[in-house]
Order: sequence, then structure tokens, then C-alpha cells
Amino acid sequence: MPTSKAEAVWEGGSREGKGAITTGSGAVAVAYTWQARFEEAPGTNPEELLGAAHAGCFSMALAAGLTRAGHPPTRIRTTAKVKIESQATGGWKITNIHLDCAGEVPGITADDFQQAAEGAKKGCPVSQALAATDITLSARLLA
Amino acid sequence: MPTSKAEAVWEGGSREGKGAITTGSGAVAVAYTWQARFEEAPGTNPEELLGAAHAGCFSMALAAGLTRAGHPPTRIRTTAKVKIESQATGGWKITNIHLDCAGEVPGITADDFQQAAEGAKKGCPVSQALAATDITLSARLLA
Repeated sequence: MPTSKAEAVWEGGSREGKGAITTGSGAVAVAYTWQARFEEAPGTNPEELLGAAHAGCFSMALAAGLTRAGHPPTRIRTTAKVKIESQATGGWKITNIHLDCAGEVPGITADDFQQAAEGAKKGCPVSQALAATDITLSARLLA
Repeated sequence: MPTSKAEAVWEGGSREGKGAITTGSGAVAVAYTWQARFEEAPGTNPEELLGAAHAGCFSMALAAGLTRAGHPPTRIRTTAKVKIESQATGGWKITNIHLDCAGEVPGITADDFQQAAEGAKKGCPVSQALAATDITLSARLLA
């Protein structure tokens, strides 16, 4: 069974330090900082990478579901927005992931597209892994 | 509060199609395919990106915990291995994420390092978001 790998290296304290993240395939090699995560400085952060994983998984799963139903999509475009909030008890929590999806799918009804999108939201592997997290979806079929 | 964004575009059927993932910061812009995900072809996939998010989050959280305890780390290196398995009922499931962590931390005991690593595994935002998923940890303090 496939196992995927990624590595992070962090040097120094949390606010003063800096990190680097690389993936096993070599496709991703990025720097990250506390400031890019919590203070809107330029750069990537773990939530953005989580959104990348989720948007990618959802879109492929929706394409798979539509293909099985006889409607392979022309294009599925999904934006994941990952919200993190500081907690009264200290620390941070990812409080919502919103998936905003638009599909170009020949020959499908809006209802069937909506149903397929709900199915991918519930069933895609990354959604399942994130079952403890609030996930919301808006999906629309493009004309 | 910060909201992070990422986008995926998928074109075509699941096995024949192809996808692209980009993040809001611009740090990540990668292609992905079914074959890179499930058939060990070269390239990234959602599990690898999930591992990147988790390794990055865990490492920063561990650095933060160690810093609070008066032991800012010289270096934390964490590999995340994300295992996905096909299910008898159909579909795929992420069945384990293993975090393998090595730390260079001046002046800390091995027990205190272990405890800090367990705390980051339990409390980091991505671990919390993945609370429905089996997460395991091995942590060692480098001499």
C-alpha cells in the first residue's frame, strides 16, 4: 500500500526560529515561519498545506464519483479555506475548513452534481481523516 | 483570525485526468495524478501534502513547547509518513500517520523531551484536526 512522506525541520525558538518543509516526491520545498502562520506575513504555513491536501483530495474524489456515474468532468475547481483561531484556553485550533467547488460537467443535472459533491465531501480520504473538524461545502454547477 | 487558502483544479476522469494544486501564498504549485497517488508513479499527492502540513505543524508546536519550558531547540527534524489503504468496502482510507522526530535541544533531559513531543503530538492544531485518524510518534533526543 502506498505510504507518502514529508519532512519538516525547525531551527530555534517558536517566534524567532524558522522552518523548512519538503516532500518525498521533491515537489514541495518551502520555508515557513510563525509570522507567516499567525501574523499574515508572506509565506506558506501548515494550514495552507492542509488546504492543498484537502482541495486536491476532494477534487479527485469528486471526479472519480462523477466518472463512475457516467459523467467524467471537464473541470472541477475547488478552493479550500482553512480557518485557525486562538483559543481562550491558550493555543490554536482549526475551527473550519470550507470547500468552495465549481464544476463543468457535461450532461449532469444540478441536483446530481450537488449530490456527488456532498458524497466527495463526506467520503474522500482527507475528509475522513479530518472527521473531527468542521467541514462545510458550497458547490455549483457551471452552465 | 488568519484564514489560509489553497486551490485544486482537476480536469477529466479520475484515472485519465490530471490535477493541479496551488496555495494562496504562491509557495506551492504542483501537478498531481491518480497514478502518483495510488500507483507509485513520480509526483506529489494529497497524502504527501497532508504529511507536509502535519510535520510542519508538529515541529513548530514542539519548538513552541520547548521554548516555553526554557529550552528553545537547536533543531527539530520530523518525518511524517501517511499510509493509505484500499478498503474492502471500496474506496481508500488514511489508516495511520506516523511522526518520527529527532531533536537537538540543549540542556533538556530525554524524559522531558519525550513529554514535550507527546504534548505536541496531542495538541498541535493539525493533530487536533486529525483527531479521527490514528497518529503514532517516535521521538528521540540527539546527544
